This record gives sequence, structure tokens and C-alpha cells, in this order.
Amino acid sequence: MATLKVPSSFPPAEEDSEQLRKAFAGWGTNEALIIQILAHRNAAQRKLIRETYAATYGEDLLKDLDSELSSDFQHAVLLWALDPTERDAYLANEATKRLTYSNWVIMEIACTRSSNDLFLVRKEYHARYKRSLEEDVAYHTTGDFRKLLVPLVSAFRYEGDEVNMMLAKSEAKILHEKICDEAYNHEEVIRILATRSKAQINATLNQYNNQFGNAINKDLKSDPKDDYLSLLRATIKCLTCPEKYFEKTLRLAINKLGTDELALTRVVVTQAEVNMHCIKEEYHKRNSIPLERAIARDTSGDYEKMLLALIGYEDA
Amino acid sequence: MATLKVPSSFPPAEEDSEQLRKAFAGWGTNEALIIQILAHRNAAQRKLIRETYAATYGEDLLKDLDSELSSDFQHAVLLWALDPTERDAYLANEATKRLTYSNWVIMEIACTRSSNDLFLVRKEYHARYKRSLEEDVAYHTTGDFRKLLVPLVSAFRYEGDEVNMMLAKSEAKILHEKICDEAYNHEEVIRILATRSKAQINATLNQYNNQFGNAINKDLKSDPKDDYLSLLRATIKCLTCPEKYFEKTLRLAINKLGTDELALTRVVVTQAEVNMHCIKEEYHKRNSIPLERAIARDTSGDYEKMLLALIGYEDA
Repeated sequence: MATLKVPSSFPPAEEDSEQLRKAFAGWGTNEALIIQILAHRNAAQRKLIRETYAATYGEDLLKDLDSELSSDFQHAVLLWALDPTERDAYLANEATKRLTYSNWVIMEIACTRSSNDLFLVRKEYHARYKRSLEEDVAYHTTGDFRKLLVPLVSAFRYEGDEVNMMLAKSEAKILHEKICDEAYNHEEVIRILATRSKAQINATLNQYNNQFGNAINKDLKSDPKDDYLSLLRATIKCLTCPEKYFEKTLRLAINKLGTDELALTRVVVTQAEVNMHCIKEEYHKRNSIPLERAIARDTSGDYEKMLLALIGYEDA
Repeated sequence: MATLKVPSSFPPAEEDSEQLRKAFAGWGTNEALIIQILAHRNAAQRKLIRETYAATYGEDLLKDLDSELSSDFQHAVLLWALDPTERDAYLANEATKRLTYSNWVIMEIACTRSSNDLFLVRKEYHARYKRSLEEDVAYHTTGDFRKLLVPLVSAFRYEGDEVNMMLAKSEAKILHEKICDEAYNHEEVIRILATRSKAQINATLNQYNNQFGNAINKDLKSDPKDDYLSLLRATIKCLTCPEKYFEKTLRLAINKLGTDELALTRVVVTQAEVNMHCIKEEYHKRNSIPLERAIARDTSGDYEKMLLALIGYEDA
């Protein structure tokens, strides 16, 4: 469930465009007005506002937002203003240019979006970057990370509910064998995680738990500092319980000495229209503090207001 | 260019359905009428005929064709009656169930269809088989074959003409190094062939030829009997000059002691509406005999007539 709040009666895109234009006019910028409008419009409405703005003023709303705003607030508003597919293509492209930790962003997009949405991201990637997503991911990664990430971003998983229990049992056994041998990067482990449907993987991991007495992610903690192992655990989380994965990503971003604004913004912006309601509940349960309070404590100013509005905090 | 000949004025689908129904009626089947109709209708027309037939007679044209016809002719007509996307999904699925040689069919579909067509095949595969194409390919293959085929069927290649010459030079060098080391299954070789656009691969292989004095496929012949190496050469051919690949597939199918009807039918049926014109020219050039004569010498009866009609042979 989404946390984004769109007013039941909202003005036509012409009026929103005009208001945004006013927010940029003269000395200083009216940030509150920008939040009031953009943080309360869904993807289709924001798209229409961008189109109307371009048609009316002959300028790109994103460029104007870029030049009027700054730092974390700017980053959050710009990401939010993008269409979800464009945004994922942009985030994935940025991730291919950075190091280690950005592998998580690529995996997150590959594993938490629907098969069709992931395909649309790949299509958008062609249009924007004149290359394929898997091409850039393969080129910019090496070793075990490449072995895992390339099939993840290339997957077009079946999404039906059908589950083959025989297969679940036999593949649970394969996973257990490879984990016992510490062959975490074994092609069979990657094949199962990268090609099976989420329903089938869920059945397999339940079998794993039943047959071997441990959740698989417990058995993947032999070396808690190993980067590949933690990416593998995160992959499994994204495939089976994305709201827990996002809760943890928020927790780590907020609890860090010096907030990790990139991660905080990414999760809030990409999930506000999708599943942020469940993520908030998970967060509260796990941290004994509501997410809005944790965010308010760690951020400030317009950036804070923007994030709070997106997670549906009334007083924002 | 296609070889399929559709008459400039063709009857409405209702009439075609009725004629086909008549061809099935009474003792014996009117095979000539079936060829006269189906082998002269394009994919959209055949689809409409199937729909009209189902609406009029409450039966599936494919099932009726299946029960009325037999052996190689039956196989050719059934494959031809399918929509190209359905047909590829079916061929790929059949290939995952068979051994070694069928790896070629999977590679052929992955490498000679457009990115978008390959994606439509993957979508159709979900619908028909309740699994993903890459899932079945990964499950039914092992070792080097899996390493190569899974990324090939999962690819969504960029299709623009842009070429990065620096990259072409550096990746030609990588390919050459790996080939010198006989590391034909190296992940870098597979990365380049499975993720780069066809235009980029072409530029890279031209660089290879320029820098190292040999076409890459010559250097991949160290062991002419190695199955993986010949699949790798075929992959390169499919990506860079599919008409040559298809010519050779036809040549081997026809010259075999006992024609390989599966391969012959597959190439004729899948290419008749696509590129059969060039394939025929290649065939004539390479074998000093027109394709229609080679086919006529090796096949007979309705099967022969069906193939000749599809390759646009007038007297068929």
C-alpha cells in the first residue's frame, strides 16, 4: 500500500504548472509550495504537469527544479518528479558508475520490481543511454558480483502462483549442499535465485527451513563482513519479503553516523507509491519508533518536509 | 526479404475457413487445397483464419490439421500455422526437452530475432508453459552450454547503430587474448557476445580481423569436433550474418545422409516471412544449385510442395 496522499479534488495540470512557475519566480524559491503540489500528485499527474509545463513555458520542469533547488532536497524532488520507469533506469545507470555498495541498488531494482516493470526499465535504459542495462552491469562489475547481478537484471520471471513442490524440495537440497560446501557463488545457487518465480523461490526456502532447521539467510552468515554474502542475503530478502529489506535499508541509512541520504531518499521516493505503508509498519515494529519520527530526528528543513509528506505524515 | 507469396487479392477469412473445412471433409484430405490457402497467407491473415475457424466451427484449426495430416507435412503445416511468437516459444520449449543439438535451436532463436521479438517470445513462454524461458534453459543445460545460452536468451540488446570504436578495439583484444589461452568459455567472451549490440559486436569482430589477421571463427576452430566451440561459432554467425548461418543449416540438413527434416522445416517456416530471399541467394552461391532444386531432390509429396511454396517457388 502506498503512503502518497493525493487530495480527492486536485487542480488541473495547468494550474499546478502555473503555481510551480510562481514558486520559482523572483528572489528565493517557494519550497513549501513545491512540496505542497508535487508531493501530493501521483505518477500520472506528475507526468501531466511536466508535459503541461513544457508546453506552456517551453522549458523543462526538471531543469528548472534542478536550478532552483539544492542538495538533498533537490535530489529528492528531482527523483520524485521522474516517472517510476525513468527513475529506475536513472538509478541503475548511476549505480553502474559507482562502486561496491551500488551493487545493492542494481539488485534492489532487479528483484523488487515486477517482471513487466523491470522490462520497461530495460526499454527505457535503451532509450536514455543507447546501451542495454545488462550490458552496463556486466561491463562495470566483476567476479561473483557480475555472476549474480547480470542474470538478476536480465530476468523476466514467471509471476503466477503455481508452485512445484517436488522441485522446491530438490532445489532446497541443492542450496543446502552448496552452502555446506561454502560454494555460495555456485552456478546452481545463482540459477535458482535468478530464474525461478518468486512463488517458487518462496516454496523452496520454506522447504529449506523445514528440512534443515534454519532459515537460509542464517546459514549465509558464515562471514558477516563478506560483501558478496551480504548481497546474496539481501537478494533473498528482496525476492521473498521486500518490505523487510526496505525496512533494514532505512534503518541502516538512518542509524548511520551521518545519515545516508542517498539510500533514505531512494527508498522513500521509490516506495511511496508502492509499498511504503507496510515498510512503515515493519519499521515501527523493528525499531520501536515510528518512521516519521526517526526521519524527523535525522533530517531537517525542506528535505525533511518532503520525505515526511511522501510517507504520508499528516502535519507535513 | 520474404519469399512468402500472398496473392494481391485474397478471399476473406470466412471463405478460407470454409475451404479448409471442406479440405478435411469426407474420406481423405485435400492437401493441395490446404497448401494453396495456408502457404499463401501471411501471419496476420493466418491468425484471422484460425480465429474465424474457431468462431464458425467451434473447433481449433490446429487440432483439425493435426488429426488430418501426418509426418513431415503435418509438422511443417502446424508450425507454419502458428503465430511467429507462439512458434518460437514452442520451438524453444521443445528444444529444452531434447539434447545437445537442440542447443542450436535455442541459440538461433535468441540471436536471430530482434530484441523486441525475443521479448515477446519470453512473454508467450510464460503464458504457455507457466515458467520463464531462461528458467527452463538454465534447468536443462549444464556447464559451458548453460553459461552461454542463459545470457543469450535473457538478453535485451540495444539495437541502435551507434558504435564505440575504442571499445571495439579493446574488446577485440580481450577476445583475442582469451582465444589464445583457449579460454573459450571465459566470462569476458560470453559477456561481449551476450550483452553488446549487434552493431557493436560487428565492429569488434572487424577490429579483431584487422588487428590479428584472421576472422574470429577461424581462430575458434582449434578442435572442429568440440560441440561448445561449434555452438560458439554458430552464435557469432547468427549475430553478424544470420543468412549465412541459415544457409549452412539448410546445407547440412539437406546433405545429411537421410535429410534432417526438423532443421529443414524449421528454417524454411521461420524464415519464409523474414529473410528467406537472401538465404536462397546465399544457398545458390555456396552450393551452385538453387535451393528449390536441392529441396525437390531431397523431399517428396505434399511436404515438398509445402516447402517449395513457402520459399516462393512459382510452380508449387
